[in-house]
Amino acid sequence: MTKQGKRQYAIVGVGGVGGYFGGRLAQAGLDVKFLLHSDYEHVREHGLTVKSHVGDFALPKIEAYRDVREMGVADVVIVCMKTTRERLLGELLPPLIGDDTIVILIQNGIGVEADVAEMLPGVRLVAGLAFICSTKTGPGEIWHQFFGNINFAPYNIDAKEVEPIVEDFALANVQTRIMGYEEARWKKALWNIPFNGLSVVLGMQTDGLTRGEAAKICRAIMDEVKEASHALGVADETGKWLIGDEECDKMMAMTQKMPAYSPSMRVDYDNGREMEIEYLYRRPVKMAQEAGVRMWKTEMLTMELEAIEERMKENG
Amino acid sequence: MTKQGKRQYAIVGVGGVGGYFGGRLAQAGLDVKFLLHSDYEHVREHGLTVKSHVGDFALPKIEAYRDVREMGVADVVIVCMKTTRERLLGELLPPLIGDDTIVILIQNGIGVEADVAEMLPGVRLVAGLAFICSTKTGPGEIWHQFFGNINFAPYNIDAKEVEPIVEDFALANVQTRIMGYEEARWKKALWNIPFNGLSVVLGMQTDGLTRGEAAKICRAIMDEVKEASHALGVADETGKWLIGDEECDKMMAMTQKMPAYSPSMRVDYDNGREMEIEYLYRRPVKMAQEAGVRMWKTEMLTMELEAIEERMKENG
Repeated sequence: MTKQGKRQYAIVGVGGVGGYFGGRLAQAGLDVKFLLHSDYEHVREHGLTVKSHVGDFALPKIEAYRDVREMGVADVVIVCMKTTRERLLGELLPPLIGDDTIVILIQNGIGVEADVAEMLPGVRLVAGLAFICSTKTGPGEIWHQFFGNINFAPYNIDAKEVEPIVEDFALANVQTRIMGYEEARWKKALWNIPFNGLSVVLGMQTDGLTRGEAAKICRAIMDEVKEASHALGVADETGKWLIGDEECDKMMAMTQKMPAYSPSMRVDYDNGREMEIEYLYRRPVKMAQEAGVRMWKTEMLTMELEAIEERMKENG
Repeated sequence: MTKQGKRQYAIVGVGGVGGYFGGRLAQAGLDVKFLLHSDYEHVREHGLTVKSHVGDFALPKIEAYRDVREMGVADVVIVCMKTTRERLLGELLPPLIGDDTIVILIQNGIGVEADVAEMLPGVRLVAGLAFICSTKTGPGEIWHQFFGNINFAPYNIDAKEVEPIVEDFALANVQTRIMGYEEARWKKALWNIPFNGLSVVLGMQTDGLTRGEAAKICRAIMDEVKEASHALGVADETGKWLIGDEECDKMMAMTQKMPAYSPSMRVDYDNGREMEIEYLYRRPVKMAQEAGVRMWKTEMLTMELEAIEERMKENG
């Protein structure tokens, strides 16, 4: 850390996730800078308003920026941008990164850390797996519906280095856990791969997707994610698979108990925004195939999403 | 045939297809009885009105029935009912069938003849493959948009026996052709399997399905139909496959040239009617699998259609 005691945070991407976690850290009195884009003017004037199932709060004044060059180096950079603009990180991150900076990618999918490490050699990365249902409902306006914890999974640094960040999040009333990188990414994928794509193609929310025939498809796709993780060697130190049938069943049961929810890809689709097909679908499908496993249903789902997105773009 | 010269026709199911072909036969002066259900009262009073790209016509008076027992035995029974009520044929057909009656099933899918032959042992069957875009737009009101020919494919009778029927259809200005059973059914399936299901799942008409990413899915599913037909031995007498890449490419090119069209399954879905999933999807997928070929994308599409239909039924 570049300073003793108080770490500087930079939040890159202030949507439902970045707005909520960044807001909680700022609310706890931590030093948090926010990089904004379209909402910059509004947020600089009015700050952030968060409606949350664990307590609403407002931050009338936050450190809002629209140019990374004005933000300076941070101790912790939290990236909450959609992966559809992943290439942008090659330009956005360098001004924020010093020798000791830790970059946490709270992003969906498989392969984001590898790509960022390739864009920015030497960058110190942690995967952030947010289990949260939170959306931006207007400029500077966040609606945190349920859940709200994060798993930190160090990609190329020691877990010990993440512990001070865990403490800051505890101050901010956000529950976190440090876990293994592969386990964290693939357990998140176990939820993301079935529910995100199918919510778009079948036009259902999680309540519909966890019942009857739709639930059979979700479970079958979970099986494919499970098989892919095995082919890619996602196991603990004793060689035991980290994703088995039990994990799939638990994930289904947990989702069934959730209130009806639109996964982020569905929200993107409904708002005419590009979908995160690359890291959520193409990448894991390709990695599995290279490891000798075909994710047949996921492949079909990927093609369907590509077709739907192509038509969405045509229609403006 | 039970009579010389003038054959008696019975049309079972008077929607876009039955209404058009039955109407053309009646217009040509042939003896045609129509079995109606919901439209009976209206059609008995007002007859049939056909708007057709090869010439509109009206039949103010047709032989309309609502009970097969009043219709008597016919020389030719043409079944144009949806396969979703296939079991009904076990009750509907017997009063119409004499020793020499030929039953033509103008229905979609794979396996309908085998099922009807099992329900009604000894029945003399011909598959009717209609290449026609025609829909019922109101009671007794048919809109024939384009195409309009039929292939007759004898299932368990000699092709010669179908020739008089070909002549009657020629009188009625409907072009027909006699072809081999397996070839006919599988070439129709080559169109039906991609375009029907995807029009529902992707929410596109044929114009959208034949472009870009969607076209890739259609073509990939055609490949699966092709492979399935090979596994099931659909070949000519020299052993040459009847469905190859050339047939797939031709089918895509032909569909691309068509005006935008909603396949029948999409029309059913849009009207909240049960979809023909059994004979168009489950059956060929099962037959292929038993022959050692997995139709992976078609299997996923089948599951998606089942999920969509289940939800449609729930929503009434």
